[in-house]
Amino acid sequence: MAKTNPGRFFEDYTLGQQIQHAVPRTVTSGERALYHALYPARHALYSSDAFARGCGLAGSPLDDLAAFHIVFGKTVPDISLNAVANLGYAEGRWLQPVYPGDTLRARSTVIGLKENSSGKTGVVYVRSEGLNQRDEVVMSYCRWVMVKKRDPQAPAPAPVVPALADAIAPADLVIPVGLDFSSYDFTLAGEAHRWGDYEIGEQIDHVDGVTIEQAEHMMATRLWQNTSKVHFDATVRPDGQRLIYGGHVISLARGLSFNGLANAQMVVGLNGGAHANPCFAGTTVHAWSEVLDKAETAAPGIGAIRLRLVARSGGEAFTRKAEDGRYLPHVLLDLDYWALIPL
Amino acid sequence: MAKTNPGRFFEDYTLGQQIQHAVPRTVTSGERALYHALYPARHALYSSDAFARGCGLAGSPLDDLAAFHIVFGKTVPDISLNAVANLGYAEGRWLQPVYPGDTLRARSTVIGLKENSSGKTGVVYVRSEGLNQRDEVVMSYCRWVMVKKRDPQAPAPAPVVPALADAIAPADLVIPVGLDFSSYDFTLAGEAHRWGDYEIGEQIDHVDGVTIEQAEHMMATRLWQNTSKVHFDATVRPDGQRLIYGGHVISLARGLSFNGLANAQMVVGLNGGAHANPCFAGTTVHAWSEVLDKAETAAPGIGAIRLRLVARSGGEAFTRKAEDGRYLPHVLLDLDYWALIPL
Amino acid sequence: MAKTNPGRFFEDYTLGQQIQHAVPRTVTSGERALYHALYPARHALYSSDAFARGCGLAGSPLDDLAAFHIVFGKTVPDISLNAVANLGYAEGRWLQPVYPGDTLRARSTVIGLKENSSGKTGVVYVRSEGLNQRDEVVMSYCRWVMVKKRDPQAPAPAPVVPALADAIAPADLVIPVGLDFSSYDFTLAGEAHRWGDYEIGEQIDHVDGVTIEQAEHMMATRLWQNTSKVHFDATVRPDGQRLIYGGHVISLARGLSFNGLANAQMVVGLNGGAHANPCFAGTTVHAWSEVLDKAETAAPGIGAIRLRLVARSGGEAFTRKAEDGRYLPHVLLDLDYWALIPL
Repeated sequence: MAKTNPGRFFEDYTLGQQIQHAVPRTVTSGERALYHALYPARHALYSSDAFARGCGLAGSPLDDLAAFHIVFGKTVPDISLNAVANLGYAEGRWLQPVYPGDTLRARSTVIGLKENSSGKTGVVYVRSEGLNQRDEVVMSYCRWVMVKKRDPQAPAPAPVVPALADAIAPADLVIPVGLDFSSYDFTLAGEAHRWGDYEIGEQIDHVDGVTIEQAEHMMATRLWQNTSKVHFDATVRPDGQRLIYGGHVISLARGLSFNGLANAQMVVGLNGGAHANPCFAGTTVHAWSEVLDKAETAAPGIGAIRLRLVARSGGEAFTRKAEDGRYLPHVLLDLDYWALIPL
Repeated sequence: MAKTNPGRFFEDYTLGQQIQHAVPRTVTSGERALYHALYPARHALYSSDAFARGCGLAGSPLDDLAAFHIVFGKTVPDISLNAVANLGYAEGRWLQPVYPGDTLRARSTVIGLKENSSGKTGVVYVRSEGLNQRDEVVMSYCRWVMVKKRDPQAPAPAPVVPALADAIAPADLVIPVGLDFSSYDFTLAGEAHRWGDYEIGEQIDHVDGVTIEQAEHMMATRLWQNTSKVHFDATVRPDGQRLIYGGHVISLARGLSFNGLANAQMVVGLNGGAHANPCFAGTTVHAWSEVLDKAETAAPGIGAIRLRLVARSGGEAFTRKAEDGRYLPHVLLDLDYWALIPL
Repeated sequence: MAKTNPGRFFEDYTLGQQIQHAVPRTVTSGERALYHALYPARHALYSSDAFARGCGLAGSPLDDLAAFHIVFGKTVPDISLNAVANLGYAEGRWLQPVYPGDTLRARSTVIGLKENSSGKTGVVYVRSEGLNQRDEVVMSYCRWVMVKKRDPQAPAPAPVVPALADAIAPADLVIPVGLDFSSYDFTLAGEAHRWGDYEIGEQIDHVDGVTIEQAEHMMATRLWQNTSKVHFDATVRPDGQRLIYGGHVISLARGLSFNGLANAQMVVGLNGGAHANPCFAGTTVHAWSEVLDKAETAAPGIGAIRLRLVARSGGEAFTRKAEDGRYLPHVLLDLDYWALIPL
């Protein structure tokens, strides 16, 4: 067994450690088509080269979330193979679009470590970055996971918990070079609502639902080269269930959010997120959004909108937490992100 | 809810109304590969660039039915979101092939309106067109659907039922520029039967069958960006079934028809079609064809053959309707189309 | 029925007969992406154009097994439509990589015939070759299958059993032009183990498992245009099961073998293989490997490693046959192949 990857345990991480993740990935129009087969993705900028050119880009990029999934997938063998829980995300930024033909690789830096009081696990904080074939960083985000210790007797490192922003400041959002919504075609995009039509606090029920199949979530997760056993192997869990990759639910919910947020075209910031409850095949996912914030940008015709995106399995729209502050059992995802939308 | 699409009701349509459908779509070799993964598609012209070039084309086009599905999918949010039934097709013509890299959009014109005697629904007739990035019409077809009224008390419009041809006249079939079957390679195409080998009235049982899975029909329908809830959301119908998009059955049956009609390469005319009974996952689809007509064309080596394509779930081949004229319960699809075949 | 393909029976084969298989296939980045969605494929050379260029190739080729599946699929309508059993493989060699844009076709030569004593079946031995659009042979392998006789009374041909090598001699392995592992990036490839780190007789349990879904094996098998009814039609077998294409298990097991054999990048020789037991949807596949042989090559930095790859459903790793020489019931696949690995 010495040749297979046992994953890293809590003791294997040190503050400041840099990890180069394996298996670079060239993305193509094939990944793009699969994204549209696996998720109800209809945002026009990612569907049509002509529409994207009308917005100042060279063509239709790979969905921003696909870029995230690929970078995330690369980190799994080094970060979360022995993870007990995926605790949170912060400070996620998309720094430039990924186009068919680009090759992505990933690296992570350990930015925090804190052993849990049980002595059996610890929390590892990493900043992960995706880089393209020109060594440009295309996205960057922080994630923290609870990881098993190999040896409960191993000494605890000095605890370091990084200070992470609650949200990306609007001025720190990176708008793709050339992006211009001043000639935006609202008819082709599918809705007339622009930046000014959304109010902070406004809530939108996205109406549509999708029932998830095993083959779908496994094909998606495999395409992102995510190797976490629980997603693929029905013999891992005592209940015979395959746990659905949390990112699959993110992409589903984002796809559903087209209905009401068709013009929230580009995802540029990930402020935070929680996979509130596990999701399994057979679940029907519905989604709702809430406008958390709005900001202007210096780019032509482009505003920023901060959205809470909640995926649910049953339950009611616009419900999220119980009085004790815990997520209600029907809530699958609570995501906080920035998108770009025409003014 | 004000921001989400409630769909149009019968009162929202007016005669002559033009509707531009949203979400243009660039098709690539990814959609092409998915078509071959989702359907038993083996017609050589759509499988091999080299074969297509040998027939005078620039390369292998996207399957004609994929082009249809994409155009159809675009029309759903505006035409059939509140449809009770998809009643029929007529006067469908493919006007030029769609190649990887092309961007398709769709528009429809209301050509007929007739309220039903119940006052609760009406029939809307539209002509829908798919256009490419050069604003050339790549396909055009008529469809009529029964749509709910928002308000049963709303006054009925003057009834207009368009006169639609029973079948496309052979002279009106459009043969792609450059198409030439005079050096057609029957060995590579898979069968020796040419135009002259088929007789009007001849029936062919295509032998092979395919059992449909939920993941397959949902991935296909999602790839065409068809948003009809009944295909994706198991909570919509009281029986928990997801209704399979009728076009999925069309593509399955057409794929199966390779066995016996391998040289009926290009679909150029859609004379009519009925989704005779609903189809659900788990169904095993078999198909049979009948030669309805034949015609010569002015193009080199190219004949036209008019085919009835019937998909069935169980039952017997070559059975279609009961004595009372109603479709037998095992009949899923009854399609009438023109294809191009080497002389 | 005269127009559909009844398949060939034992009497239809003659020694030396050449068969051109139908339906050439252009492969694209779409097939490549689907391969990564359907199998846990992570070998870097097939994942990243940049990595492949670093190894002296023009870009990332289509997975070698995908090339095999496509060639194999083309042979099915002519070789194995009436096959009772797929008996074995030998002398398989990959002669050059297949790149997106290439068009593959296939041909077979009958190299042996032997009627079985029952008089009801016979064994047909063929050498099958895949050719690209430049008529270059990209792969070649021998296969023998047991085929039904149409007429048990038909006279038996003179028995000819070809002499097939137990394994490809290392000197006969073809290394792609330009391939160079002297600057191989072990970090990006995912493991540090090189040719010298593996010992003959060494066994590796690849740890990870994958549970197979109906939609997945059908989409894969359909993508290879394999028309064998048993894979798609639940009404064919009395038990209602769809038999999974043996090649699907090969690709799954090869993908799983990344964990421990990440640097066994290119498959260049197929020495033999047995589909030891049938596989059905719902099966969870695990895999283990054994190093059977090693050889140096004349190419820069490149060694060859001969591996036994065993796929199992339950049971224990490193078990294969019972004392009577028969495969244990949990063994699905026993494959013997050569791969190229950095020195």
